[in-house]
Amino acid sequence: MAEKVTGLEIEPSMKVMDLVKSMENCGLQATQVGRAAKIISKMKGKGTVRILTFTTNLVTSGMRELFAKLCREKKVDVIITSIGSVEEDVMKCSSSFELCSFDEDDVKLHKAGKNRVGNMIIANKNYERLEKTLMSFFEKEYSKQVKLGRLLAPNEIISDLGLELNDKDSFVYWAARNKIPVFCPAPTDGAFGLQMYFFKQRRPEFGIDVTGDLRPLGRIILDADKTAGIILGGGVAKHHAIGANLLRDGFDMAIYICTGTPYDGSLSGARVNEAKSWGKIKENADTVHVEADASIVFPMLATILLE
Amino acid sequence: MAEKVTGLEIEPSMKVMDLVKSMENCGLQATQVGRAAKIISKMKGKGTVRILTFTTNLVTSGMRELFAKLCREKKVDVIITSIGSVEEDVMKCSSSFELCSFDEDDVKLHKAGKNRVGNMIIANKNYERLEKTLMSFFEKEYSKQVKLGRLLAPNEIISDLGLELNDKDSFVYWAARNKIPVFCPAPTDGAFGLQMYFFKQRRPEFGIDVTGDLRPLGRIILDADKTAGIILGGGVAKHHAIGANLLRDGFDMAIYICTGTPYDGSLSGARVNEAKSWGKIKENADTVHVEADASIVFPMLATILLE
Amino acid sequence: MAEKVTGLEIEPSMKVMDLVKSMENCGLQATQVGRAAKIISKMKGKGTVRILTFTTNLVTSGMRELFAKLCREKKVDVIITSIGSVEEDVMKCSSSFELCSFDEDDVKLHKAGKNRVGNMIIANKNYERLEKTLMSFFEKEYSKQVKLGRLLAPNEIISDLGLELNDKDSFVYWAARNKIPVFCPAPTDGAFGLQMYFFKQRRPEFGIDVTGDLRPLGRIILDADKTAGIILGGGVAKHHAIGANLLRDGFDMAIYICTGTPYDGSLSGARVNEAKSWGKIKENADTVHVEADASIVFPMLATILLE
Amino acid sequence: MAEKVTGLEIEPSMKVMDLVKSMENCGLQATQVGRAAKIISKMKGKGTVRILTFTTNLVTSGMRELFAKLCREKKVDVIITSIGSVEEDVMKCSSSFELCSFDEDDVKLHKAGKNRVGNMIIANKNYERLEKTLMSFFEKEYSKQVKLGRLLAPNEIISDLGLELNDKDSFVYWAARNKIPVFCPAPTDGAFGLQMYFFKQRRPEFGIDVTGDLRPLGRIILDADKTAGIILGGGVAKHHAIGANLLRDGFDMAIYICTGTPYDGSLSGARVNEAKSWGKIKENADTVHVEADASIVFPMLATILLE
Repeated sequence: MAEKVTGLEIEPSMKVMDLVKSMENCGLQATQVGRAAKIISKMKGKGTVRILTFTTNLVTSGMRELFAKLCREKKVDVIITSIGSVEEDVMKCSSSFELCSFDEDDVKLHKAGKNRVGNMIIANKNYERLEKTLMSFFEKEYSKQVKLGRLLAPNEIISDLGLELNDKDSFVYWAARNKIPVFCPAPTDGAFGLQMYFFKQRRPEFGIDVTGDLRPLGRIILDADKTAGIILGGGVAKHHAIGANLLRDGFDMAIYICTGTPYDGSLSGARVNEAKSWGKIKENADTVHVEADASIVFPMLATILLE
Repeated sequence: MAEKVTGLEIEPSMKVMDLVKSMENCGLQATQVGRAAKIISKMKGKGTVRILTFTTNLVTSGMRELFAKLCREKKVDVIITSIGSVEEDVMKCSSSFELCSFDEDDVKLHKAGKNRVGNMIIANKNYERLEKTLMSFFEKEYSKQVKLGRLLAPNEIISDLGLELNDKDSFVYWAARNKIPVFCPAPTDGAFGLQMYFFKQRRPEFGIDVTGDLRPLGRIILDADKTAGIILGGGVAKHHAIGANLLRDGFDMAIYICTGTPYDGSLSGARVNEAKSWGKIKENADTVHVEADASIVFPMLATILLE
Repeated sequence: MAEKVTGLEIEPSMKVMDLVKSMENCGLQATQVGRAAKIISKMKGKGTVRILTFTTNLVTSGMRELFAKLCREKKVDVIITSIGSVEEDVMKCSSSFELCSFDEDDVKLHKAGKNRVGNMIIANKNYERLEKTLMSFFEKEYSKQVKLGRLLAPNEIISDLGLELNDKDSFVYWAARNKIPVFCPAPTDGAFGLQMYFFKQRRPEFGIDVTGDLRPLGRIILDADKTAGIILGGGVAKHHAIGANLLRDGFDMAIYICTGTPYDGSLSGARVNEAKSWGKIKENADTVHVEADASIVFPMLATILLE
Repeated sequence: MAEKVTGLEIEPSMKVMDLVKSMENCGLQATQVGRAAKIISKMKGKGTVRILTFTTNLVTSGMRELFAKLCREKKVDVIITSIGSVEEDVMKCSSSFELCSFDEDDVKLHKAGKNRVGNMIIANKNYERLEKTLMSFFEKEYSKQVKLGRLLAPNEIISDLGLELNDKDSFVYWAARNKIPVFCPAPTDGAFGLQMYFFKQRRPEFGIDVTGDLRPLGRIILDADKTAGIILGGGVAKHHAIGANLLRDGFDMAIYICTGTPYDGSLSGARVNEAKSWGKIKENADTVHVEADASIVFPMLATILLE
């Protein structure tokens, strides 16, 4: 028998966890949040490999510290993200970003050396400091490349970088220490790539073998009893996670939280169902799509994951 | 000095209220939610008239009971909505709606007598019962029209209807009892209009003078020390609320929670700023736009309003 | 057998009509546009009543003159819209609106007496002129009300107003002259309502019986061999059109062009399929949803309608 | 003085080019299309390097053949895209994709070996054929790697692949022949990466040095008199294009056509203004953002580019 729509009972002092659970029978996106909470609960079973993906803007935001906590408490097992996430996590180890509105005068910001990401600002000085960090880091990685006689893979470089950090609010720091691999299918995008462009003028042989991420990611996915996806936003991180699960005929469970529309046929806006046609998510997998900004919804769901 | 983006600190047992407050410095839409919470706090001052608007789908959902609670506890002072909200509230007094997915086979649903609203279903039997209720209710209102020698206004009809209800989870019930006017600029849309079409075959003189809502709404807005808008979704309810505030050069504070884009120039997607150009919101008003499904965000904010 | 995705062949001097037709096999929203063109062709059959709905912002834009042309050439049979469409059409009879960007400083605009709608501006002087027009027009309508001994319906008032206009680029002008009824389920919203509020301080008995639109709209829909919907944007106009077609078990064909998401359960974002569950569109109707701003897509499709 | 909103004049036999130009003063997104057409005209100046970016779904669609034409006629100078675009272009050299609806039963599709992308289907047999093509191609590239003593860059591999193709509707074919580099910052995503994963089990030393794209792309951008961006959709391709232009303080002109919202702070939904704060687009650059599915708008604009 079909489940009924039931009224929300809101109390001023209620807990997030209780709100989230009660949303399941509310209808609309509240129901999707409630269903996501249920799936998150199931992700905590032994043998389930939890793959978390996110876009860079979430690291620009205060979600970074939540990702760090999830890595510190080993609530996720694999991270796939864009390189911007890594570089901004590093910048935040020694500085802060600012809040602004979504409607700033961007020409004025540019003249002031302020780079905008939605309603947040990263000042140029952050990039200047990053430049120095990366230049000396690349030199070390270049030595390692020479010593090993092969190019490094993105996950190796990110892990090496994480071991150099000293900030307990950094997800790269905790991922490295807790052996949570951070895969990155496009490591030359972002400031990381720009600095590498300059570094290569001195060391033209320095490179990154992006195919080096394939085998370790493949092994984890093949070895898992179950795989569970927590897909925040779209982009190459999302596709890489679901694509890799083709090796085992799809994720066993997955939640998507993003804002894109499925009606432009983009991967970023695609729903869980589309992935089932491909075998990137199993036909009978537990899945839900929440159409929302992850910065609103994922903190709510994280209370379940951290429980 | 600019405020900093700060990391979210998520604890499994944290309260909704604390999460909402901590979101303010997170960036992205989380910041918008945090700012909305602050504005909601200010709405509780004496002399502030709180105008709540919502679209019908929110009453289809379990938000209806939250609206009822806000009316029961007198946390809002005026409601503006579409007539669908009223008729579905009435239907729920004697029945329930069902949950489904967003991807149902709608032809199959039609054959089964099931009407879909997003991921919810209203069975035909609800409308059959409503038909009977409305036919006898319209007869009474017709007598009242004859006695008064004038057509009734939407807010009068809705109040009369509310007084006939007997369900403590109904917002129409509580609004009527607590003298919270429910204005409705398009009372013939929806099933209400359809039944009126049939009723008028018997009583062609029966009518609704939609201009009768203007003066009572105008008086409330002119008499208020301050006006505060809680605008959930778009549509005619949203525009009616901000338009009426032209009489006092605009809302003193307002939060919008909706999903539409401002880039199609529609009123439904328009941001608070656009309303400032019109004087529908004051230039220096406290405002925020949250781009989200209200069923996720408003329950969180309601913890502040109910406090 | 399934149709194939075929490549677009773009030539610099190609006609709109040819582009639109070739889009059908392109995939993505281009396919939706091509399918809409095919349905539009079928709308031209004898006995088919074409119901056009649109939101106010489209009349703010240069689409107004296209709507006027469709009325002049009798390519549509019924219009359902918001009252803002009517008042802005009237304002444009004696003035123009301005272009701007979507990112103006709205406080500055307000100080300059400029009201923004997306990337367009309506100067205050337009409203001042409208005020005078409406005050004398309402006086006439009030006399008519007194003479007839009953309140007028929105479609009557709009027709009377159209007969007073003298601008061949006005859709209200042509609709009145060509007996194309303009139904308006919320006639007190917008500046029209605000002026009525002031007018009623002098003439408190003046009113509008919004139920007066029901019977003429019902008759047209019941008498039609077929009904065809061209639904531009969402809002109350959209719902009123599909709701009225319940009387005949639904539209026989319909195209929706709008930007909203179906995942918030709003009527504005709802797809044609949802309407099929209700019987607002027939189960086997020819339908398509184009997810786009109507100002881009409808001009393309209008070449087919005007052919 | 501000420009006026002017009415669209639609004639059944009008040309796309004329419609596009007349849209400029229509308001709403039509104005954005008209502005984009003007910027496209300016892109045809000598010394201007035109960088086209697109997401994979556009190659799944019939836009692929338009991209091929632009490469054949040398109307673009650089392409940045995801690897899916390359692999689907290759598949289409020997097969076709199918049209479907956006609402298919994806589990049923999976059982039938059909993979869905929005309203299009790619049958499994396409991937089987691709697998063979890639396996023998990778073997050749591996020999080349051994011979050169260094890993190849994505643009080299894609060019080599293009030279093996024999389909005049392929953009990879024409790009290779006309020396239009195709850069790809994430070459292991998609089926390409999956096949590489299998290939590497035999040839573990085979790799791709993704940093090898940096210098050739950098040189083009530094040497250009002007750079012009045509950014279709979001994703890593969009960011890579604007990020690379940091080397010259930003694009001199750019049009974005995409569906994403800027209010989630994602790069995919970010407007041209945000890029100006970064110096990824020049402060005084000619720019416009069209909020639309590129499959509707870009074919219209291409008539100007091909003129």
